[in-house]
Amino acid sequence: MFYLSGFAFVPTERPIALLISGSGESVLFVPRLELEHAETYAQLDRVVSYPEYPDTRHPLRRLAELLGELELGTGRLAGDSDGYPHIFGYRGPKLSELMEVEFVPIGDAIDDLMMIKSAAEVELVRESARWASRAHRLLQDYTRPGLTETQVSARAGIEATQELLAEYGDHYRAHAWGSSGPHAGYRGQIGAHGALPHSLATNASFGAGDTLVTGASCPMFGYFSELERTMILGEPSAAQQRYFGHMLALQELAIDRCRAGVSCAAVDTAVRDYFDRNGLMPLWRHHSGHAIGILYHEGPFLDIGDETTIEPGMIFTVEPGLYVEGLGGFRHSDTILVTDGDPEFLTDYPRDLGSLTLPLDPLD
Amino acid sequence: MFYLSGFAFVPTERPIALLISGSGESVLFVPRLELEHAETYAQLDRVVSYPEYPDTRHPLRRLAELLGELELGTGRLAGDSDGYPHIFGYRGPKLSELMEVEFVPIGDAIDDLMMIKSAAEVELVRESARWASRAHRLLQDYTRPGLTETQVSARAGIEATQELLAEYGDHYRAHAWGSSGPHAGYRGQIGAHGALPHSLATNASFGAGDTLVTGASCPMFGYFSELERTMILGEPSAAQQRYFGHMLALQELAIDRCRAGVSCAAVDTAVRDYFDRNGLMPLWRHHSGHAIGILYHEGPFLDIGDETTIEPGMIFTVEPGLYVEGLGGFRHSDTILVTDGDPEFLTDYPRDLGSLTLPLDPLD
Repeated sequence: MFYLSGFAFVPTERPIALLISGSGESVLFVPRLELEHAETYAQLDRVVSYPEYPDTRHPLRRLAELLGELELGTGRLAGDSDGYPHIFGYRGPKLSELMEVEFVPIGDAIDDLMMIKSAAEVELVRESARWASRAHRLLQDYTRPGLTETQVSARAGIEATQELLAEYGDHYRAHAWGSSGPHAGYRGQIGAHGALPHSLATNASFGAGDTLVTGASCPMFGYFSELERTMILGEPSAAQQRYFGHMLALQELAIDRCRAGVSCAAVDTAVRDYFDRNGLMPLWRHHSGHAIGILYHEGPFLDIGDETTIEPGMIFTVEPGLYVEGLGGFRHSDTILVTDGDPEFLTDYPRDLGSLTLPLDPLD
Repeated sequence: MFYLSGFAFVPTERPIALLISGSGESVLFVPRLELEHAETYAQLDRVVSYPEYPDTRHPLRRLAELLGELELGTGRLAGDSDGYPHIFGYRGPKLSELMEVEFVPIGDAIDDLMMIKSAAEVELVRESARWASRAHRLLQDYTRPGLTETQVSARAGIEATQELLAEYGDHYRAHAWGSSGPHAGYRGQIGAHGALPHSLATNASFGAGDTLVTGASCPMFGYFSELERTMILGEPSAAQQRYFGHMLALQELAIDRCRAGVSCAAVDTAVRDYFDRNGLMPLWRHHSGHAIGILYHEGPFLDIGDETTIEPGMIFTVEPGLYVEGLGGFRHSDTILVTDGDPEFLTDYPRDLGSLTLPLDPLD
C-alpha cells in the first residue's frame, strides 16, 4: 500500500484497502481515525473513510458497497487478500462472501512490481546505507569487553540519529512505524550465541575473544538497506581467521555473480558449491541473500530454488554465512545494486579482518 | 506461535508452523536457519527443520508430508492460515492444495485463547508498564521548546534502558524482534499535527503552547503495556484546558466501566454518549481501547460493535481521544487489568493537567 500510494501508517485491527477501478481511479479506504492523515500523505485520487472497526456495521460491508460504486462489484476481483488479513485481533468475512465476485489472488504480481527499483528508490536505499554505515562505525568504536549489546547499540543509535537530524533537520521522515533514525546492534549474535543466525538480543556482555555479528540499517522515507559485519574482539584465533576467510571468499564470489542475465539460483548454487568443495556444508544455514527496499526482506531470493533472472535495478543483500557451534557466526551482509555492468555496493564499510578486529582496552 | 511455544523469532519469507497432533504432540516446523534457536527456546515436544525457502523443493511439500506423519493428512485440518501468509516476498500453495484435507480456519479461536491473561502474563504487563512509566518520566523531563522529538525520545529511551539493564543485567529479554528496552516518544503528535491520531514521527521541533500526545512501552519477555499522556508545553490555554478536561472525564468514565460482566460495547457506548451529550462528536475519531499483551493491539475491543463480555484477567488500554484541527490531540492511554472488583491500573503515572504541564525554560 505504501509502495502504490506513499501512505505510511500504523497497521492495526482496522481494515485499510487500496482500490483501483477499471478506469484507473485510485481510492484509499481507511478508518475515520486515518482520514486526515491519509488525505495529507497519500498520493491518489481520493480517500473514503468508515467509522470504526468492529462497529455495529462491519467495515467490510462498506468496502463491498464501495467496490460496487467503483464498478468492481461483479465479475473477477483481483487483489492481494480476499478481505483484511487476520492480524491484531481482526475478525471478518472474505470479500467474496459479501459480493458476487470471483476473487483472483495477485499478491505475487504486486510483489513483482516492486522488484526493479527506480532511480529515486535506489537513492533512498543508498542514503539509508550511508547512515547505516555511520551507526555501524559508532557501534564498532564503542564495543569493548564488559559492556552489554544494549548499551553499545543504544549509544551508537542515538549519536548517529543526532548526526542525521543535524543534517536533515525536520525534513527527515522514517516513514516506518517501528523505527526512526539509524541503528546498529548485535541482536544476540555475540560469542557462541552467534551460531544462531537469527537470534534475538540477550543483553549479553562482550568478552575477549568473542566473534560478533552486527546489523545496521536506517529507515529513509520508507526504504531500508542492510549492513552486517563479522568482528572479532581481540586478536583473532586461527579458527576465527579461517572461518572469516571462507566467509569473505563466499561473499565475494556471490557479489561478483549478481549481474544482469544471471539467475538468482546460479548465485546460490555457486555459494553452495564452495561450501561443498571445502567441506563446510555442516556450517551452512541459509541462502545467500534477498531483495530489499520497503520491506527488510523482499523477493526474489538468492536461493537455489529461485529461477528469477537478475535485472538492472534490483537491489540485493548478499550474505552467505557460516555458523560454528561454540564459536559463533561468520556473516557479512552488503546491499548491492545490480547494474548493466559490475555490481555496485550501496553499503560502504570495510570488509577485511584487520579493519574488523576490535581492541580490548577500555574506552577513554 | 510465541503464545503457544514461547519461541520468539524474526519472521521472514521462510515458513514456520506450529503443529499439534490429535494425540497432543506439539511440533515446530522451522527452516534450518532456526533449528538450534528453536530447540533452545521453544517449549514443545520436538522441532523439525527443512533446508530453506524457496529451495528446489517447496517447504510446504515437506510440511504436508509432516502433517501426514502426524496423522493430520486427511479429514479436517484446523489452523489460523491455510499455508504460510503472503509476507516478505513469500509465495506458495495452500496446504489444502497439497493435501486431501478440508481446511477449517480457527484463527479467531486462537485469539480467544489469548484474551484472559494468566497471573504470570499480568505480572509481565505490569513490569512492562513500570518501565514504560520510567521512560515516560524521562521523556517529560527532557522535553523543551526547540528540541526535536527524535532527540528527546532517544535520550529518554537510552537512559531508561540503562536503568533496566542495571537492574536486570543479562537476565532481561525483550522477546520482541523490533525493539529492546523501554521507549517513549511522540510519533509526530506535536502541536497541530497531533490532530492525526495515528501520525508518524516527523521530527518536528517542540514549540511553546504545543499540545503533545506521547506513547511509551517496554517489551518484557514478549509482553507489552501502553502508556500515553497528553501534555501541554507552557501554560495551557482555555481551549486546551477544556479539551483536556473532557478527555480526562471520558477516560475516567470508560475505566470505571471496565468491570467483569459488562460488555465491551457498553464501555464504548458510554463514551460515545458523553461525546454526543457534549456536542463533541466532530472531534471523535476512534473506539475507546483494545486488549493488549503479546501484540500491541489484541481483541476484544472497547467498541460499540464488540459484544464480548468483559472478564477478570482481561487487560485493556483505555484511551478515548479528542482531535481538534489546528490545536492537536487529547488522549491518555492507561493499561487496565479487569478484576473481580474495581479496575486495576497496571500503568502508574500522573493523569492531571497540572502534572502534565511542562516548563518552557531551557534544560540545565
